[in-house]
Amino acid sequence: MPSPDNAVDGDVGGVTVADVLAAQARLRRFLPATPVHHAERFGTWLKLENLQRTGSYKVRGALNALLAGRERGDTRPVICASAGNHAQGVAWSAYRLNVSAITVMPHGAPANKIAGVGHWGATVRQHGESYDEAYAFARELAQQHGYRFLSAFDDPDVIAGQGTVGIELAAHSPEAVIVPIGGGGLASGVALALKSQGVRIIGAQVEGVDSMARALRGDTQPLAPAASLADGVRVKVPGLLTRRLCAALLDDVVIVREAELRETVVRLALEENLIAEGAGALALAAGRRVASRRKFAVISGGNIDAAVLARLLTDIRPRPPRKPRRRRADTPRPAAPAASVAAVSASPSTLLTAIAAVEETTP
Amino acid sequence: MPSPDNAVDGDVGGVTVADVLAAQARLRRFLPATPVHHAERFGTWLKLENLQRTGSYKVRGALNALLAGRERGDTRPVICASAGNHAQGVAWSAYRLNVSAITVMPHGAPANKIAGVGHWGATVRQHGESYDEAYAFARELAQQHGYRFLSAFDDPDVIAGQGTVGIELAAHSPEAVIVPIGGGGLASGVALALKSQGVRIIGAQVEGVDSMARALRGDTQPLAPAASLADGVRVKVPGLLTRRLCAALLDDVVIVREAELRETVVRLALEENLIAEGAGALALAAGRRVASRRKFAVISGGNIDAAVLARLLTDIRPRPPRKPRRRRADTPRPAAPAASVAAVSASPSTLLTAIAAVEETTP
Repeated sequence: MPSPDNAVDGDVGGVTVADVLAAQARLRRFLPATPVHHAERFGTWLKLENLQRTGSYKVRGALNALLAGRERGDTRPVICASAGNHAQGVAWSAYRLNVSAITVMPHGAPANKIAGVGHWGATVRQHGESYDEAYAFARELAQQHGYRFLSAFDDPDVIAGQGTVGIELAAHSPEAVIVPIGGGGLASGVALALKSQGVRIIGAQVEGVDSMARALRGDTQPLAPAASLADGVRVKVPGLLTRRLCAALLDDVVIVREAELRETVVRLALEENLIAEGAGALALAAGRRVASRRKFAVISGGNIDAAVLARLLTDIRPRPPRKPRRRRADTPRPAAPAASVAAVSASPSTLLTAIAAVEETTP
Repeated sequence: MPSPDNAVDGDVGGVTVADVLAAQARLRRFLPATPVHHAERFGTWLKLENLQRTGSYKVRGALNALLAGRERGDTRPVICASAGNHAQGVAWSAYRLNVSAITVMPHGAPANKIAGVGHWGATVRQHGESYDEAYAFARELAQQHGYRFLSAFDDPDVIAGQGTVGIELAAHSPEAVIVPIGGGGLASGVALALKSQGVRIIGAQVEGVDSMARALRGDTQPLAPAASLADGVRVKVPGLLTRRLCAALLDDVVIVREAELRETVVRLALEENLIAEGAGALALAAGRRVASRRKFAVISGGNIDAAVLARLLTDIRPRPPRKPRRRRADTPRPAAPAASVAAVSASPSTLLTAIAAVEETTP
């Protein structure tokens, strides 16, 4: 019997691990599992939600909400407020399910994200200067016209959908999973999916954009988030549902400095050939502070503006990664290379550099 | 019984599909299969060798050659000439197997590739202004000191190793596979692996960097390759072995314009969040000219210089992708959305834009 305060069973706030599994069954037909990639020099596995349809995990929650709604006989047009990725997820899902979708985006939302929404045929309304103004306008429209308002994070269907990231990760036996936190939908869903398996779940936030970390400490004062590369997690007030779930299920929240985040985006591009947006690289940046031999960071999205990425690639020169340790340095080497190094020693001086270097790499 | 001219059995030039399978068995322990990703807007599946260790498929051939050598009792230090990715593959493999490695790279090789080689503890010798000069010097060193010279493409072990890309692709039932061609090692190996399964194998080259395409037409005159973003395939003379294999096994070679290649690198970054180097995006660029509902392009590598990528992202604004067709446009829509659109029509004028757009998306 689940009891209301049995957090590990996930029976907090009306969403349970059973809802996540139901979402998994719904989404399977539309969204193949995203790959996991071992980032050798980071010592971290990456869950590549930047390779997800629409370039972010948000499509999972949106599609689950539309599918679950359809099962309940709800075929209303759907409306949402979003700075970008949730809107793209809603637009893609609505396109696939042949539902009308309206997305309200604040002025100043990244152009690539606005274009992504339009691509899938959804209506884009730009309104207000911030997410909050867009949100208020979207709720107003929903009420006036009987649209279904779909929260980007504080909705049981959305949380369950995002949790399918955790179900896919379970197959890889993680020890710790790090997730970025904006409103808390992804963290809540992933924690629901994995907590009962003994996996540590760690949230990641940016300094000055840490409303969930503050809320978990009891400070629920709304505070305008700092400017950050991580536009995808700039949330002033986290969800009520997600706050309860995160309070019950998260092991820790790590705060990342803006400079670390920027460097991580560049290192991810140059060392792993993967593009993440700011919020998408947040969990990986936090991974440095998580001690585990089998840690997974969710690369939550990749929808970064081309000009922003170009500037980062130009401005930031990450330190070269630490060299790997020499392997089996104390075991004797096979005879042949040692002999040939000795032979090289008698060779002409043009080869001295090569020799020195060969000797240097010879334990 | 294989006969010498039975190309489909792969018995051309002394390398057979059995060698590719043997390579697969050797490499499995070291290199997990790279993911396949559906690039929806390109209509193409991608084999992500840019997520391979060292950022390119080249490590497969290098590691197979070192492992096969060890099986034969060959523990000589290994030397190679390379503009970059082969050298990184050799360096990584030598590090893993605790073998000494020397790589000769021409002056002007991309700095990120030189750094990648050094990272794994191999000796870097910069020599000459072109691959050919580096090659001659490496052969000279090999002869003087009894090193094992490892060709970047014209070597049975290397070809068999690259062919494991094809074995991994076979699991996805491709109809057509497109591979970039420099020296021809990847194309030969992949064709060996897949040809007997009825898969069409199409090579891709850049205009002015098309020595294999010319050689297959009988024109074996060495011609300095044009400058190209695709530094990884700038080969003046393709291999002898690979030429025989490509002549026997390739269905076609598509020539891509430099501008198409540059646009493909940028679209891949912005639409799919994946970084490819020039040669790495070549097969995808060629994919436009390949008619198939199930085509796979090998994204062969991602080691592009940060400044080069930043400049491409700044300079190139790809046309927006074609919008998806409306789905089931002739079927009647569910009642609710239609009714609500009608209801909206009576709403205040501030909503007129939204209405127009909603109507536009309503078939």
